[in-house]
Amino acid sequence: MARVYNFSAGPSILPEVVLKQAADEMLDYQGSGQSVMEMSHRSKTYDAIIKEAEKDLRELMEIPDNYKVLFLQGGASQQFAAVPMNLMKNGVADYIITGQWAKKAYQEAKKYGKAVAVASSEDKTFSYIPDCSDLPIDDDADYVYICHNNTIYGTAFKDLPNTKGKILVADMSSDILSQPVNVSDYGLIYFGVQKNVGPAGVVVVIIREDLIRDDLPEFVPTMLKYKTQADAESLYNTPPCYGIYICGLVFKWVKSMGGLKAMKAHNEKKAKILYDFLDESKMFRGTVEKKDRSLMNVPFVTGNDELDAKFVKEATAAGFVNLKGHRSVGGMRASIYNAMPIEGVEKLVEFMKAFEEANS
Amino acid sequence: MARVYNFSAGPSILPEVVLKQAADEMLDYQGSGQSVMEMSHRSKTYDAIIKEAEKDLRELMEIPDNYKVLFLQGGASQQFAAVPMNLMKNGVADYIITGQWAKKAYQEAKKYGKAVAVASSEDKTFSYIPDCSDLPIDDDADYVYICHNNTIYGTAFKDLPNTKGKILVADMSSDILSQPVNVSDYGLIYFGVQKNVGPAGVVVVIIREDLIRDDLPEFVPTMLKYKTQADAESLYNTPPCYGIYICGLVFKWVKSMGGLKAMKAHNEKKAKILYDFLDESKMFRGTVEKKDRSLMNVPFVTGNDELDAKFVKEATAAGFVNLKGHRSVGGMRASIYNAMPIEGVEKLVEFMKAFEEANS
Repeated sequence: MARVYNFSAGPSILPEVVLKQAADEMLDYQGSGQSVMEMSHRSKTYDAIIKEAEKDLRELMEIPDNYKVLFLQGGASQQFAAVPMNLMKNGVADYIITGQWAKKAYQEAKKYGKAVAVASSEDKTFSYIPDCSDLPIDDDADYVYICHNNTIYGTAFKDLPNTKGKILVADMSSDILSQPVNVSDYGLIYFGVQKNVGPAGVVVVIIREDLIRDDLPEFVPTMLKYKTQADAESLYNTPPCYGIYICGLVFKWVKSMGGLKAMKAHNEKKAKILYDFLDESKMFRGTVEKKDRSLMNVPFVTGNDELDAKFVKEATAAGFVNLKGHRSVGGMRASIYNAMPIEGVEKLVEFMKAFEEANS
Repeated sequence: MARVYNFSAGPSILPEVVLKQAADEMLDYQGSGQSVMEMSHRSKTYDAIIKEAEKDLRELMEIPDNYKVLFLQGGASQQFAAVPMNLMKNGVADYIITGQWAKKAYQEAKKYGKAVAVASSEDKTFSYIPDCSDLPIDDDADYVYICHNNTIYGTAFKDLPNTKGKILVADMSSDILSQPVNVSDYGLIYFGVQKNVGPAGVVVVIIREDLIRDDLPEFVPTMLKYKTQADAESLYNTPPCYGIYICGLVFKWVKSMGGLKAMKAHNEKKAKILYDFLDESKMFRGTVEKKDRSLMNVPFVTGNDELDAKFVKEATAAGFVNLKGHRSVGGMRASIYNAMPIEGVEKLVEFMKAFEEANS
């Protein structure tokens, strides 16, 4: 079978050139006679791979020198605990609840202190981003937490919340590297790589050095202390070596595409094609407020469950796969991450138009 | 360059047929039009992959039905915390210290209760396994902990400790699937996969169901509760999908090799070739007590640091790589895991003989 157009929300489409290179190098990485999977993580060859990956990520995101980059395991779900464990000093943190993942992070934080939901869009199935210009930020808040792009609901922060001087922490799992980010606006950014960057099993933490502490409660596992991996340059124990290698190849690919500004233009172009069609269609419509629309995840519905199911089935047969929406929203969702070519979105829209015509 | 003979202690050599299949399927897994890296972990295709991997592991190890198999992240180092967090009820556990990893596990356990070192071989650089037939096991001990094969030092348990009725917990990271194991002897077995099974970034926990509890201290992260992943069949969050897929291919390969009895015979044959040579050589000698020799990791020295370095250098140039010993033992170490062919050990011994002749 030919390659499909894969609209999966995560794990997700990866650049074909990256997969080809990985396949080519599988049995012999650059004359080493070994697969990257087989290399000691303490070897010079692997050290060059992880160092180069970090260097390229730093270049792409223009990460200031006073931030550490950590390649970790456990996914965003583990960061839900690691963030409060490491950053709560006063034992207070403010959470902005814009979806299931932010909510899970908030619930996990309650184990470790007073987590406060200072804003939420749950009243309308998380279909918008709340006004965050003047929130009741706690004077003692150790940080303010956001999920920057909401994979399930298809919303994204366009303006950052006014944290009133508190540290901002962001989960960027589903829009990392999709556009430029001013890293200095954040105390900590983290992302599971399995949407825009690589295979599931790597989570990257970008943290301002002064937030890395050693005076944590006794119960914090050594592996969940940022200091452990910061001191060891992500090699305290065996890292997910192969996943990091693939991330490195994707970083190179993003650079070859022109970096984050070019990537943003590319993503805006793709998203416009799809949103413009949703706005003119008489059958399909987007589910979120226009001003808060994500560049990465585009949920849409027909308003008729049977028609939705028919669409997903026929689209799958035509090679547009993983379009079924999340169960909490229903309908469809097209995730159009960095690696989705414009052609994929154009062809999807053509298919939607034909479906609309045939079923009106 | 041709493939080398890779004696790395971990990550380590993988079967070439597995790497070839992975390369072949990289862009299109069995007609899905997607790489396994790109698949939703909730898709039917991926579900079949993880279910089949579990089924094959259960078959290979004859895992009883009242044990759960969990595919997790964070490596053995994270299990050092997860084990006491989940299993300590009375807050007491007994540790047998046979190397650095067992010691690290013991030190981490102290965060969560009274961890007692009931035996240790640290007095002689962990070069033997202590007599564990009549240890001062605590009446309240929630479990007795061992590291079944000591990667750094090259020792292994041949007989299990007498736990006096307490639950036995074993880290089998470096000898899993190298020989049959009677799973019922253990309450919990875990292994990082990066030595005998797959790419770093997956840790497998095999746990007796009655040990999976929900009444844990509040501070235990959701992701570190075995119950979380047991209830979700390892899909609470996105698992390290690609790594699990490779593990599955290796399980199939072990089955094709005849299963664990055949694998044990294969490993004994390889180890005998190397140990026999070490016992007859006038230049090289093994560093551990003969009765406790590991089938997987064979440390050896010449007794002369300069000669050791010369050997490692010349061996590397000849295509025998990663033979340098761990800094705490010095000298050399040949890790001869499942995937190392007999030919690799035979050729290494030939090379050692020639080196001995040339340098005597």
